[in-house]
Amino acid sequence: MSAPLILVTNDDGITAPGIRTLIHAMNQLGEVVVVAPDRPQSGMGHAITLHDSLRLKPMSIDAGPQTEYACSGTPVDCVKLAVHEVLKDRKPDLIVSGVNHGSNASVNVIYSGTMSAAVEGAMQGVPSIGFSLLDYKWDADFRPVEPYLKQIAQDALTHGLPEGVCLNVNFPNADKAPFAGVRVARQALGFWKEAFEERIDPYGKPYYWMRGDYYNPDEAEDTDIWALDRGFVSVVPTQFDLTAHHALSNLHRRLDQR
Amino acid sequence: MSAPLILVTNDDGITAPGIRTLIHAMNQLGEVVVVAPDRPQSGMGHAITLHDSLRLKPMSIDAGPQTEYACSGTPVDCVKLAVHEVLKDRKPDLIVSGVNHGSNASVNVIYSGTMSAAVEGAMQGVPSIGFSLLDYKWDADFRPVEPYLKQIAQDALTHGLPEGVCLNVNFPNADKAPFAGVRVARQALGFWKEAFEERIDPYGKPYYWMRGDYYNPDEAEDTDIWALDRGFVSVVPTQFDLTAHHALSNLHRRLDQR
Repeated sequence: MSAPLILVTNDDGITAPGIRTLIHAMNQLGEVVVVAPDRPQSGMGHAITLHDSLRLKPMSIDAGPQTEYACSGTPVDCVKLAVHEVLKDRKPDLIVSGVNHGSNASVNVIYSGTMSAAVEGAMQGVPSIGFSLLDYKWDADFRPVEPYLKQIAQDALTHGLPEGVCLNVNFPNADKAPFAGVRVARQALGFWKEAFEERIDPYGKPYYWMRGDYYNPDEAEDTDIWALDRGFVSVVPTQFDLTAHHALSNLHRRLDQR
Repeated sequence: MSAPLILVTNDDGITAPGIRTLIHAMNQLGEVVVVAPDRPQSGMGHAITLHDSLRLKPMSIDAGPQTEYACSGTPVDCVKLAVHEVLKDRKPDLIVSGVNHGSNASVNVIYSGTMSAAVEGAMQGVPSIGFSLLDYKWDADFRPVEPYLKQIAQDALTHGLPEGVCLNVNFPNADKAPFAGVRVARQALGFWKEAFEERIDPYGKPYYWMRGDYYNPDEAEDTDIWALDRGFVSVVPTQFDLTAHHALSNLHRRLDQR
């Protein structure tokens, strides 16, 4: 049996310390191909490049055995181009994204390029995982994370994941290491409350900077935020079926007509 | 009782015929404020502008009573800037996005700037609806759509929408008008299969164009694609809780550790 083929991407760009940690861990589990953005793409969500072409540039960043390409597109573009062009003769066995510098827990999942890459991987029919560390710093300490990267990725390689489901894995800040363990959880229903700061440019015209504060009224013990606050690694199964199935019957009564 | 306040946005840009149709319809239901992208933002998904400032430019495009601003950001930026800056003294009663030139049915919902604006509206706690016409053309015929825009928007103004749920409304191509009626449905579990076309630039370097074909193995009668194929307007309740609740128990057994 040949070694599993593992595709690695992220949204912080191919040189970020987070993805270098992930590549190092995945090299111990299989054959690694990296197709990652050539520059930071944070907050890109599930954006794709519809009206422009894409570039792929072979890279050699460290001494590892992986094959690497920097891509001019978004994280989702990277996954599509990797699966259908770079790896068109052999479907990957696993797609991993990250390790993101910063949280993708709770509602952050929907803005996240890291998690959108994993969601796209699941849409392509490949077991996929996004990893994120609750530390925005470029020089964040990723050392406590590496054993969990290997363990959770190996579990997905061995057992697969349910169809249409990827994993959103978040790690507490390294100052909480050693971590308390691993908790499978649901996405906490928190939200960002934005405030815009107006400034005036040198030509007298206004412009706006977005700032936001996170609020979490969802204090139940089965959420990712609850687990992370207590030092656990959180694992949320995440899907791309956005249908609010619980709302169907009421709306049938209100809106159906023929 | 004062007229309801309705925020209008889209992803095709503020001058697109689709949003002009939507503004015209909403002017008949309430007081309309438009904050929409200053240029096309299709395929932007839930992208937000994290590392740049935003601009707002007052516009006067037609003779209608609405107030309008062109925004330099993504559709989701438009909603945030509208709710927290332009309308910070009065929360809108309804947020509508579109009418998109092209389908946002099935899995297209996840790539769509139009629908991400509606999802963001729901995240801000405002009843929100995205409207899309299955016709990509700039000069698509929006006439059969307008009565449904008013009816579905008025229903949401009157009855509200469940917390955390927005509506994804798609209209068949106008050549299917008069439409067969309205069907509340779930998102069909179809997918895009991409193929990349490699070309060589004048300097001898390769670049890639993405193309895709849509496949839908999900032929059940309760899906949006089923309804649209038969000439119905489809209405899918759409949520931002991406948790795959059905996958939790199996993963608890596999991954929980403490």
